[in-house]
Amino acid sequence: MTTRNIRTDLALENKEHISECGQELSGVEVTTEEDEELGITVTWVKITDEAGAASMGKPVGNYITIESAAMKENDTVAHEEIIKILARKLGKLHNLQPDAVILVIGLGNWQVTPDALGPKVCEKILVTRHLGDDMPQDLQGRVRAVSALSPGVMGLTGIETAEIVKGVAEKVNPDMIIAVDALAARRTSRINATIQMSDAGINPGSGLGNKRAAINQATMGMPVIAVGVPTVVDAATLVNDTMERMLDEMAESAPDEQTFYDMLRGLQETERYGLIKEILDPYEGNMFVTPKDVDAVIGRLAGIIASGFNIALHPGITQEDVNRYLQ
Amino acid sequence: MTTRNIRTDLALENKEHISECGQELSGVEVTTEEDEELGITVTWVKITDEAGAASMGKPVGNYITIESAAMKENDTVAHEEIIKILARKLGKLHNLQPDAVILVIGLGNWQVTPDALGPKVCEKILVTRHLGDDMPQDLQGRVRAVSALSPGVMGLTGIETAEIVKGVAEKVNPDMIIAVDALAARRTSRINATIQMSDAGINPGSGLGNKRAAINQATMGMPVIAVGVPTVVDAATLVNDTMERMLDEMAESAPDEQTFYDMLRGLQETERYGLIKEILDPYEGNMFVTPKDVDAVIGRLAGIIASGFNIALHPGITQEDVNRYLQ
Amino acid sequence: MTTRNIRTDLALENKEHISECGQELSGVEVTTEEDEELGITVTWVKITDEAGAASMGKPVGNYITIESAAMKENDTVAHEEIIKILARKLGKLHNLQPDAVILVIGLGNWQVTPDALGPKVCEKILVTRHLGDDMPQDLQGRVRAVSALSPGVMGLTGIETAEIVKGVAEKVNPDMIIAVDALAARRTSRINATIQMSDAGINPGSGLGNKRAAINQATMGMPVIAVGVPTVVDAATLVNDTMERMLDEMAESAPDEQTFYDMLRGLQETERYGLIKEILDPYEGNMFVTPKDVDAVIGRLAGIIASGFNIALHPGITQEDVNRYLQ
Amino acid sequence: MTTRNIRTDLALENKEHISECGQELSGVEVTTEEDEELGITVTWVKITDEAGAASMGKPVGNYITIESAAMKENDTVAHEEIIKILARKLGKLHNLQPDAVILVIGLGNWQVTPDALGPKVCEKILVTRHLGDDMPQDLQGRVRAVSALSPGVMGLTGIETAEIVKGVAEKVNPDMIIAVDALAARRTSRINATIQMSDAGINPGSGLGNKRAAINQATMGMPVIAVGVPTVVDAATLVNDTMERMLDEMAESAPDEQTFYDMLRGLQETERYGLIKEILDPYEGNMFVTPKDVDAVIGRLAGIIASGFNIALHPGITQEDVNRYLQ
Repeated sequence: MTTRNIRTDLALENKEHISECGQELSGVEVTTEEDEELGITVTWVKITDEAGAASMGKPVGNYITIESAAMKENDTVAHEEIIKILARKLGKLHNLQPDAVILVIGLGNWQVTPDALGPKVCEKILVTRHLGDDMPQDLQGRVRAVSALSPGVMGLTGIETAEIVKGVAEKVNPDMIIAVDALAARRTSRINATIQMSDAGINPGSGLGNKRAAINQATMGMPVIAVGVPTVVDAATLVNDTMERMLDEMAESAPDEQTFYDMLRGLQETERYGLIKEILDPYEGNMFVTPKDVDAVIGRLAGIIASGFNIALHPGITQEDVNRYLQ
Repeated sequence: MTTRNIRTDLALENKEHISECGQELSGVEVTTEEDEELGITVTWVKITDEAGAASMGKPVGNYITIESAAMKENDTVAHEEIIKILARKLGKLHNLQPDAVILVIGLGNWQVTPDALGPKVCEKILVTRHLGDDMPQDLQGRVRAVSALSPGVMGLTGIETAEIVKGVAEKVNPDMIIAVDALAARRTSRINATIQMSDAGINPGSGLGNKRAAINQATMGMPVIAVGVPTVVDAATLVNDTMERMLDEMAESAPDEQTFYDMLRGLQETERYGLIKEILDPYEGNMFVTPKDVDAVIGRLAGIIASGFNIALHPGITQEDVNRYLQ
Repeated sequence: MTTRNIRTDLALENKEHISECGQELSGVEVTTEEDEELGITVTWVKITDEAGAASMGKPVGNYITIESAAMKENDTVAHEEIIKILARKLGKLHNLQPDAVILVIGLGNWQVTPDALGPKVCEKILVTRHLGDDMPQDLQGRVRAVSALSPGVMGLTGIETAEIVKGVAEKVNPDMIIAVDALAARRTSRINATIQMSDAGINPGSGLGNKRAAINQATMGMPVIAVGVPTVVDAATLVNDTMERMLDEMAESAPDEQTFYDMLRGLQETERYGLIKEILDPYEGNMFVTPKDVDAVIGRLAGIIASGFNIALHPGITQEDVNRYLQ
Repeated sequence: MTTRNIRTDLALENKEHISECGQELSGVEVTTEEDEELGITVTWVKITDEAGAASMGKPVGNYITIESAAMKENDTVAHEEIIKILARKLGKLHNLQPDAVILVIGLGNWQVTPDALGPKVCEKILVTRHLGDDMPQDLQGRVRAVSALSPGVMGLTGIETAEIVKGVAEKVNPDMIIAVDALAARRTSRINATIQMSDAGINPGSGLGNKRAAINQATMGMPVIAVGVPTVVDAATLVNDTMERMLDEMAESAPDEQTFYDMLRGLQETERYGLIKEILDPYEGNMFVTPKDVDAVIGRLAGIIASGFNIALHPGITQEDVNRYLQ
C-alpha cells in the first residue's frame, strides 16, 4: 500500500501517516528530543535501507525535523535557541573540514511569497568566497569560503534547476552544497513551524511546483544537504485529510451506522484523492493553503535559517556576531 | 434556515447556495446576459426587500457580477471588452452629474498579496482633484474631480477603516464613494475570474479579515458603490464544500447504502462547519486558499478595474487613452 | 541675504550654512552633547524668535538632531543606544499624560524607496487604539492608545495630505500627532545617518517632492512632533555645494589668481543655483542622489524610529520587549 | 589622452566627449537615423580597430543606440515603434539560424531598483527551452529554444558573474548569449531614455558597481550581445560635468577674466575628478543620481526590451502576440 496520496515533503509526516494506517515499518529508526520549556521538538528519522525508503516514499538518509510554534512568532529569544539547534544539527549531518568550500542554493521563486524562502535565505548568508586575498583582517581565519546562488524556477528560466546548479558547482567546486527550499506539509499546524534538514538531497519545486530532477549526492557528485520549511499545504491534501479525520470522529460516535462510511474509507485512497482534485478543478494543481501573515513570517524564517548557517559554516562567527550584525 | 456557513462575499453564490438547498426565495430578482464568443457572463442580482435580504444574508440593493476566466489570463483583447462592460454597468448603478466629485477607496492590506487589490487599483486611478486651476489644457473639460485613498487595515492603523473614510470624506466632500476590496468566494473557479459591483456598500475586511463597520450610504451619508474581486477561498469553506459535493456524487452512485451519509448530511450545516474549523486549527481563521500566480494576476485585475473606472468617471477619457497611457 | 539656495530640511545644516557665510545670527540657540565612544552627537537647535526664524528659513521651535554613522550600518548595539536617546528626547519635546491618545502619521510614498520611511515606520508601530475593551491582559495598563496612518502622497491621492490628516484627526481626536517623513540633506555624509525631531511641525513632501500645506499645531489644533531622516540630497544642491567647496580649496592653494574665482563667487548664490538647475534639466526637479544600499538601510532606520516611539509612547514597553518582540 | 574620467557606459557619450575635447578620432565610424515625428534617434557607432578602441575606451565592435524620451513615458504607441526598431537592430547585430538556442542573462541586483532592469527583463521573456516535446501545438514551429537566467551580483553570491554564466552556458549550450544590464550615463537627459545594444559584450556591474570579469565572445566562446539602459548617473560624474558646462558658459560671457578659469580647466581632468570624489566622501563610490519615478519606469523599460527580444528571437511571435499576451 502506498502512502503518497497525502502530499508532504516531511519525512516525519510520512512516518505519522504510516503509523495511522497501522502498518509495520522496517528500515526506519526514529528518535525524539524535546525541550518542553521552550516548546521545541527535534525528531531524527533515519531511513536505513531500501525497504524503509519504499514504505516512506523517500530516499535512504537522515531527516532531522525541528518543530516550534515560536518560529512563526516574533520571539527572538526562542529564535536564538532554534538557531543554535539548527547549527549543531547541521554539523552532525556533515562534518566540514576547516578549509571546506560551501555553495548554498536558494531554490524557489522570489516573486511568489510562500515560495521565496530559498532566495531570502541566500540574501542573508555571509558570503566570503569572492573576498579571497582581499579578506578584511577581522574576518581572516574566522570564515570558510561560502557562496550562495538563487537559480530561479524552471518555468521562468527554461532550464532544469539541477542543470544550473551542476554548471555552477563545476566552476565553484565546493565540498558541500546546501539547498534551501519551501516545502509542502500535510498538517496546517506545521506550516512555518518546522525546519527539516536532510542529507538525502531534494527535488526542486516539490513544495509548490512539480517534481523536477533531483539535487543530491548522486546527481551532483558531492554531498548535498537539503534544508526546508513547509510554507503551504496543498489544497487537495487539506480537503482529503480534514475529511478523513472528520469521518474518523463521526465513526467513533456512531459505530453502528457505518455502511456508507466503510464504503467511503474503502475507496482506494488514490481514488478519493483523485476525486477531490477533480472537484477542485480548474485551478487544483496550482491552489495552495497558506496563512495570511505569510509575508512577514517568511522573512523571520529566512533570518533563523541563515543565522544557523552563518554559525555552522563559519568557525569564527558566533551567536553574538549574528545578533549584532547579521540577522 | 441560514445560508451563512458557506463563506462568500458574492451575492451570486448566496443565490446559488439557496437554490442548491431547494429553498424558495422571495424578494430577489436575477437576470443574466451572456457573451458566449468571449466567454463573459453578466448576472444582475437585485435584492428588493427585507425578506430577500434576510434569506440572502446581504443588504437590499443591486449586485452585478461580471464573470470571465480571461480576467486572470494575459489576454488584453478580452480585457478591453471587460473594461467596457465594467464602465457601462458602473454608470447604471449610479448616474453621475458632469461636475460630480468622486472618492475612490482602496481597502485592504498592500503587504498581503491577495489583499492588495484595493491599494493597487488606487495607484492606477487618474486622480485629478488636486489639479484644480493647474489642470493641463488637454485635460480641461474632459475629467471629473477624482481622488483616491488607501486607508490601510485596522490591525495596522488602530482605527476603524470606516472612521478614516468618513473623516476624509468630510474634507473631500464627494458626491459618490467607490470602495474597492478583495473578496472571498465559495468556488475556487471564481477566484480572480469575477468582478462584483454593488450599490449596497461594503464591510471592509470581509474577504480576508473580520467583519468591520460598514461603509455604505447609511454610514457615509452619500452613495457608496462597492467593487470587488474574490481572490481567496476560506480554507474551511473549501473543505466543507468539496466534501459536500463529493458526498453527493457518492450517494448517487450507491443509493442503497446511505445510512452514514444521511447522518453526515443530517448534521446541522453549522455543526459540520464548526467541526471542520476545529480540525483546521490552530491557524484556521487565518488560512486561505489562493492560486500560485496570485502576484501577477492581482496586477492585471487592478489594471482592468482602474481602466473601467477611468473611462466611467472621466467623460473625456476613452478606451484609446486607457490603452495608450493609462493601463 | 538668504540661505535658502541650499536645499536642506535639517535646521542643523541651515545653521552651519549661516556660519559658513560668516553671518551674525540672533534668535537661535545651539547646544551639543557628544558620546565619543559610540560616535553619537546630539544637537539641540532652538529658534526662539521671528528674527531667528527668518534667518534660518524655518519656523520658531525646537529641532533636535541625533547623528551617528552607525544608523546606516547593521550594528544592533549602537541602534539600541540610539533608540534610547530617541525615546528620551521625544519625551522632552512633549510631555504626555498617562491617558494620552497618539496618532502617528507616516508621510511619503511607499513605492519610492527613499521616500518610504514614514509608511515603514507605521508598519512597525505597536498600535493599540482599536483594542479598547479587548486589550490582552498582559498589555493592560502598559500601553497608551496609539494609532498610525500612512496617507500617501498628493500626486497619487488627489488630496492635500494635511486635509487627510485633519479629517482623520477629527475622528481619532488625539492629544498629539507625530509625523514621520523622509527628508533632504545638504551633505551626503548625513544621508541615513541623522534623525531630526522637532515640535515645529512639517511640510509633507519637503524631502523628495514639492512643498505642501503644513502639518503643525496651527493647522491641526493640537501639538505636532515631526520626525525625519534625510535619505537623499537634491542633485542641484549636491553640485552647487561640491563646486563651492572645491573652489574654496583651489582658491587657498592659488591665492594670487582669483579674478575668475571672485566672479564665480560673486554671482548671486541664487543665480548660480538657477544655472545649475538649468543644466541639470530636463529631469532636475525630480533627480535625487541616494546611496546604493538605500533599500536595506530604510528598513533599519524605520526599525530604530518605531522602537524609539514604542518605548516613548507606551509606558510599560521596555527596551527588552522591543528587542524580543517588536523590532 | 584619456576620456575615462567621465563615467559612462554609452559608446555614444565617449564619442561626444572626444568631440567636445576637439580630438581627432580614427577607427570609429558613426551613422545616425532619425524619426523626427516620433522623436526617435538611432546611432550606430562602429569601432573598427584598436586605435579606435583605445581612444574610445571600449572594445572593437558595433554599438547601436536607440534614443527616445517616450521610453520613460507611458506612451504605448511610441513603445510599439521602439520595440520594432529594437527587434530589427538586434537581428542586424547577429544573424540567428532557425534552430538557434539562446540564453538571455539578466545582470544586476533585483533588490536595488535602478539595478533591477536585467532581472525584470528575464521575467518577461517567453522562455521555451524546457518545453521540448511538451511544446503546446500553437507554439510549434513558431519559437526558438530560449532560456533566461538572473545570476545575481557578486557581492551577494560570492561568485564572479562571468563564472556563473559560463557554467550555465556549458550546460545549456546556446548559440548566442544576450546579456541585459542597467548602465550609467554621463547626461541625466539620457537616463531611462536610451537603449544601447552591442556585439562587444559587457562587464557586469559597470552601471552601479565595480568592473568585473567580462562576458564576451572571448570569455564565453560564443557570440555575446549586450543590451543596456542607463538608469543612473554617477554622482561625481554629474558634479564634474555640470561644473565644466557651467564654467564654459561663464567663460564665454567674461572672456577677459579667465586666469582662474584657465587654472581650473588646466587641472588634469583626472585630478579634478579625484578632488570631487574626495569631497563626495564618505559614500562616494556608492552614491548615484536617479529620477524619482525610477520604480515605475524600470518596469516599462523591461517590457519594451523583453517585447523586442520576444519578436526578434521567436520567428512566429508578432507584435500582435506581444500586445495581446506578452507585455
